[in-house]
Amino acid sequence: MKIFVNELENYVDKEITFSGFVDAVRDKKWVMFVILRDSTGKVQMTLEKSEESNSSMLELMKNTTVESTIRVTGKVVSNEAVKLGGLEIIPTNIEVTSEAEALPFDFNNLDGVNIDTRMDYRWLDMRNPRNTLIRQVESCLTEGMREYLYKNHFTEIHSPKLIGTASESGSEVFEVKYFDREAYLAQSPQFYKQMALAGGLDRVFEVGPVFRAENSNTNRHATEFTGFDLEFAHIDSYEDVMSLEEDLLIAGLSKVKDVYGEKIKEVFGCEVIVPKKPFPRIKLGDLYKELHDRYNFEIPTEDIGDMNAEAEKLTFKLAQELYQSEFMFVVDYAATKRPFYHMRDKDGKLQGYDLIWRGVEITSGAQREHRYEELVKNAKEKGLTKDVEFYLQFFKYGCPPHGGFGIGLDRMTMLLLGLSGIKETQFLFRGPNRLNP
Amino acid sequence: MKIFVNELENYVDKEITFSGFVDAVRDKKWVMFVILRDSTGKVQMTLEKSEESNSSMLELMKNTTVESTIRVTGKVVSNEAVKLGGLEIIPTNIEVTSEAEALPFDFNNLDGVNIDTRMDYRWLDMRNPRNTLIRQVESCLTEGMREYLYKNHFTEIHSPKLIGTASESGSEVFEVKYFDREAYLAQSPQFYKQMALAGGLDRVFEVGPVFRAENSNTNRHATEFTGFDLEFAHIDSYEDVMSLEEDLLIAGLSKVKDVYGEKIKEVFGCEVIVPKKPFPRIKLGDLYKELHDRYNFEIPTEDIGDMNAEAEKLTFKLAQELYQSEFMFVVDYAATKRPFYHMRDKDGKLQGYDLIWRGVEITSGAQREHRYEELVKNAKEKGLTKDVEFYLQFFKYGCPPHGGFGIGLDRMTMLLLGLSGIKETQFLFRGPNRLNP
Repeated sequence: MKIFVNELENYVDKEITFSGFVDAVRDKKWVMFVILRDSTGKVQMTLEKSEESNSSMLELMKNTTVESTIRVTGKVVSNEAVKLGGLEIIPTNIEVTSEAEALPFDFNNLDGVNIDTRMDYRWLDMRNPRNTLIRQVESCLTEGMREYLYKNHFTEIHSPKLIGTASESGSEVFEVKYFDREAYLAQSPQFYKQMALAGGLDRVFEVGPVFRAENSNTNRHATEFTGFDLEFAHIDSYEDVMSLEEDLLIAGLSKVKDVYGEKIKEVFGCEVIVPKKPFPRIKLGDLYKELHDRYNFEIPTEDIGDMNAEAEKLTFKLAQELYQSEFMFVVDYAATKRPFYHMRDKDGKLQGYDLIWRGVEITSGAQREHRYEELVKNAKEKGLTKDVEFYLQFFKYGCPPHGGFGIGLDRMTMLLLGLSGIKETQFLFRGPNRLNP
Repeated sequence: MKIFVNELENYVDKEITFSGFVDAVRDKKWVMFVILRDSTGKVQMTLEKSEESNSSMLELMKNTTVESTIRVTGKVVSNEAVKLGGLEIIPTNIEVTSEAEALPFDFNNLDGVNIDTRMDYRWLDMRNPRNTLIRQVESCLTEGMREYLYKNHFTEIHSPKLIGTASESGSEVFEVKYFDREAYLAQSPQFYKQMALAGGLDRVFEVGPVFRAENSNTNRHATEFTGFDLEFAHIDSYEDVMSLEEDLLIAGLSKVKDVYGEKIKEVFGCEVIVPKKPFPRIKLGDLYKELHDRYNFEIPTEDIGDMNAEAEKLTFKLAQELYQSEFMFVVDYAATKRPFYHMRDKDGKLQGYDLIWRGVEITSGAQREHRYEELVKNAKEKGLTKDVEFYLQFFKYGCPPHGGFGIGLDRMTMLLLGLSGIKETQFLFRGPNRLNP
């Protein structure tokens, strides 16, 4: 198996084979430096011109274009003069494994490059070590959160993305030609997570694609993105849901900090801050008052009972001022502004929350309504009947009290690294005008 | 957080709260036994009728239907006379958290129940402890394999399922109405895994849905299933790919054996067998000869250079007879029978393999063609040009040698537990006539 750049220090004075991209060639009078790159970093390969035995390798590398890939056999040598990790490879054999044409743009200098060009050539764009790191951090964050869930007896499920009825909110659903009928693409695994609990699984999660047929072009929206969704049974209130989300985020962010904290600071200039439990909580009414008194912000009439983008930004400011926290739970949303399956208490108060991080809502969570009659009543109030008929059935034959939430994985990665938008964050962005590559 | 049945032994003589389904009520003359169930097992709750203080709880449980859910406060007591784990709960308070209607069938006795009825009421069907275990085993297998990959520097990716061109084999692709144009559902993350390697990620994997618009109704096929796909760079040959697959399967199956081995034996009556490395390998020509000489099997003319279902079954028999192995790699397939992106050596010999387990092909793997000119040539030979144009671009700007494979997660779980078909195995089966629930 391949030896990685960040493992080379274990091979000093040893003969190894190293494979990677040719990042740069510096052809000096007496020596040629070839910088090699893999997903973990860069290393220098040094070819002294005075060495007779180097002549054919020098010739080969002179004719090898940057971004070609090579396989080098050679010795790892410790050399303090080498800026790249104090190590160099002294080769005895070089094989070119693929040859690169001239690149359409310089991925090391993306400032002047249009985001659409970058997406057209995503496989070049992501060679920029900064963009490589985005993928690694997202993977690591997912790993950290999954580890927490596995440890806590969660079962991973894979719910269908092809569904028979356009549920929840029909207008934003993609239609699929399914043999001689229509199918739809699932907007979220919400109903299926709950079905799994009705099926006795107690605690479930899913990491998978969700689809939204929204014809909008913001820097936060995509028609397809990765949802990190979970649901668990036998809770006492939505406080249990918030508490689990705190633990989950602490686990995920701790993992990222441990593995990539230093590198993130170096590349993105930002600190991975692991929050402390409990995160501050605020009621929507109190929040409106604070935002008014402190920042002269008035929630527009149509948004009363809910948040908007500006309110989310100011909530972050408030959380930092009041609690020195990057996170804040907002509770007491109006039931009219939330899905019918969020539980209300006997006074009609909604048993759910949003979590605001760095000025953006990253989660909606709630205790769910598990009582059939209540659920039917809520659905009717929202004018939902036929489309959710199949869903209502899950609650007829016993279903424990439960709750859960969903996190947009790309959005979370975007906020974590301070990226400018979702297009830059996603492996391959999908929007109304973007289906390629 | 909930205490699970399999954790109760840690709470003997302690007062706890336990939540679960009412599995059964045995109302005897002097005592009422209520069997409670969660995702880890069953426990007995005992109500002595002679105890005055039990009267209201006895009344409540008399009026509570089976499969309702309850929350019990009580003491965990060790009692050797109790068959269920030697423990019982002596309650002091019971709260009914949801009430069950009469069930449409008895999920504990599924023998006479039509598979379609079972799928219509999947959330009841899966309450059968056997079916609960299927989900837990699949999750555990995935966890074990992922752990192996994380440890070996793989990055998890989430490639788009909405794609702009119907690539690979257009006839089996679902069409999506995408605003004012068409999109398609990805049949596999194959091209994107490779793109990620061209993008410098070195090693990637993905666990996610794949879609196949095949109008066929077998017990092995579904229109949507979960693929476990990986791809890694800087390999020397497809031997590296087979070797990694061996390690991956050993890791996954070891985890399942550790966590659920005993339970699987008890419930499914089968042993989890962790294979040893290396798995036996056989060339297709030699296999044909062995199958002919031993079992009088002749491969049909149209399948020469390939396998068929009967050959797969007999290959399992052969692997057991010759090597006492459940697994066998078959190599030397005809290039005409394999995708254009599988590498051939300079003599045209295909650098790929199939892995047969328990009579079924569970993987196709290969070293991929990473050299642009060769890839273009292969694509042309297969009559593919425009549809794979975008894919060919990935190889123009340097791409390291690489290989990989995909495993159908549901199919693997089916074989592992000796299940009768994919309908029974999947959380929610999707086929030409099945889009609900």
